[in-house]
Amino acid sequence: MLIIPEDVCAQVVTPEAAFTAVEGVFAAMARGDARNFPVVREALGHADALYGFKSGFDKVGMALGVKSGGFWPGNMARGLTNHQSTIFLFDPDTGQLQALVGGNYLTAIRTAAASSVSIAHLARPDAKVLGMVGAGHQSTFQLRAAVKQRAFEKVLAWNPHPEMLPKLAAVAAELGLPFEAVDREALGAAADVIITITSAFEPLMMRDWIKPGTHVACMGTDTKGKQEVDANLLAAASVFTDEVAQSISIGEAQHAIATGLIREGDITPIGAVINGTQKGRTNADQITVFDGTGVGLQDLAVAHVAMRAAQERGLGSRATL
Amino acid sequence: MLIIPEDVCAQVVTPEAAFTAVEGVFAAMARGDARNFPVVREALGHADALYGFKSGFDKVGMALGVKSGGFWPGNMARGLTNHQSTIFLFDPDTGQLQALVGGNYLTAIRTAAASSVSIAHLARPDAKVLGMVGAGHQSTFQLRAAVKQRAFEKVLAWNPHPEMLPKLAAVAAELGLPFEAVDREALGAAADVIITITSAFEPLMMRDWIKPGTHVACMGTDTKGKQEVDANLLAAASVFTDEVAQSISIGEAQHAIATGLIREGDITPIGAVINGTQKGRTNADQITVFDGTGVGLQDLAVAHVAMRAAQERGLGSRATL
Repeated sequence: MLIIPEDVCAQVVTPEAAFTAVEGVFAAMARGDARNFPVVREALGHADALYGFKSGFDKVGMALGVKSGGFWPGNMARGLTNHQSTIFLFDPDTGQLQALVGGNYLTAIRTAAASSVSIAHLARPDAKVLGMVGAGHQSTFQLRAAVKQRAFEKVLAWNPHPEMLPKLAAVAAELGLPFEAVDREALGAAADVIITITSAFEPLMMRDWIKPGTHVACMGTDTKGKQEVDANLLAAASVFTDEVAQSISIGEAQHAIATGLIREGDITPIGAVINGTQKGRTNADQITVFDGTGVGLQDLAVAHVAMRAAQERGLGSRATL
Repeated sequence: MLIIPEDVCAQVVTPEAAFTAVEGVFAAMARGDARNFPVVREALGHADALYGFKSGFDKVGMALGVKSGGFWPGNMARGLTNHQSTIFLFDPDTGQLQALVGGNYLTAIRTAAASSVSIAHLARPDAKVLGMVGAGHQSTFQLRAAVKQRAFEKVLAWNPHPEMLPKLAAVAAELGLPFEAVDREALGAAADVIITITSAFEPLMMRDWIKPGTHVACMGTDTKGKQEVDANLLAAASVFTDEVAQSISIGEAQHAIATGLIREGDITPIGAVINGTQKGRTNADQITVFDGTGVGLQDLAVAHVAMRAAQERGLGSRATL
């Protein structure tokens, strides 16, 4: 069994490798070659923690495993990340533990890869202005991944806590992009691509603020009750997602579905767009929304990349159970 | 993070320690201090494997984690165990991985501990004859654990494949007990305690073969469709279990429930008997049945024993993620 700590993951799993892995597994899901298993998510009744598992099997990539972990809100005060994840890979031929992989960096990079895949397949090719709604830890990964997909010339950003914006601004500067803190309405009016990456429980971006042709990647909603954008925006847009079952239950689409604004059949798995079996953007004025709910197979795909790279380069350590 | 391989588990987790841990967690479940999370169990569509997770949290014992693994029927031909399990313990205060524990020995020892707990609390004190139905790998663990609870004078055994009986006979000899291979009817007529530990999908022991006062621990049924004893036996007996929800859905009681022979309310959690809040055996002629379905908290309890013992004795190895 190979043990791959966080620093090795950060060293070997580049945003490009994560993009390829996540794009590949979305495509495999749509072909029926990869399947996510039911998600376990429980309130512990201790330390205010949410804990659970996302798991699945990609029978072409031969990635089998589980991401275990959750959210411990008191961790920050202890100098730890609130989100704690560990990924376990098993040999699909024997069930033996293959690799134990730190999951914190990989969760960030695979979530960024998902919005990046959506931009690659759904945003207008001439998109110039990137709007970021949210400026937390995860937003910097999102920004770094997004800028590789289009020739963005400017980054606009808004965050409920404006004091967090300088960290995102620093990343934009590093990427050589002008950065501007704006209000949400101005962001909607100017952005060609918008990424929402917050923990909001109410719509932050209204339908009327979004201009024709915009691509919106909603990356923050992964639980019943959370919401980042106006449900009317989904009704006005073509809606895509990583997994339809999660999109309608715990994803951004839950609200538009619950109020009858859209139906399940209105949501297209992005894997089908990648495979060319369903259409993505069909015209320049269309608004596209990607509902990124986060699936276990994304975690397994990037952990598999880490495992293969660590094996090839002799990184990580070995143990026997 | 502590890595505790199979050999260390076998060294530090004695049947006595497993008994105490499993008895304790059954009691905690009945008090509401420990809770199993939903079980994930999936057919992989590869290598004929069944794969999944059992998880839970004991907030008094502070054991949080998951047992991951499954059944790979082709493993034997590769020189590996068909059942493959790994247990992961997390720090309930932070969510960080605490210990990675080999799960094969622990699964055997915790399953044996469960029937042993049921014998301790439900069998007649004067039980003399132990009947074993099943003689596979797990049966030897069952036998070793059972003999500690009553002054057994003889072991009777039956197995669908009689050629497997000598291995169980050798364990009985080691324990200083006479051993006799018998047919099932003779086994029922003579045994005071019966342990069924098979993978049967049809009743192996009929109601009329079981004499008054017998305690029957049904340990093999953990999946929809499996069955070891006549459903009429459960109707004639007082029925106890580790977890009622599993007993009625995937345990031995599923058939008696499905045919209306018993109702959910007829099944008593053994933890309530341990806690003294519900009655166990009330007279010498009563037949008692324990439906041992196997819960994640049993795995976590024995893994926690392994972790504490390994910490105290400086066993296992350490790694950082």
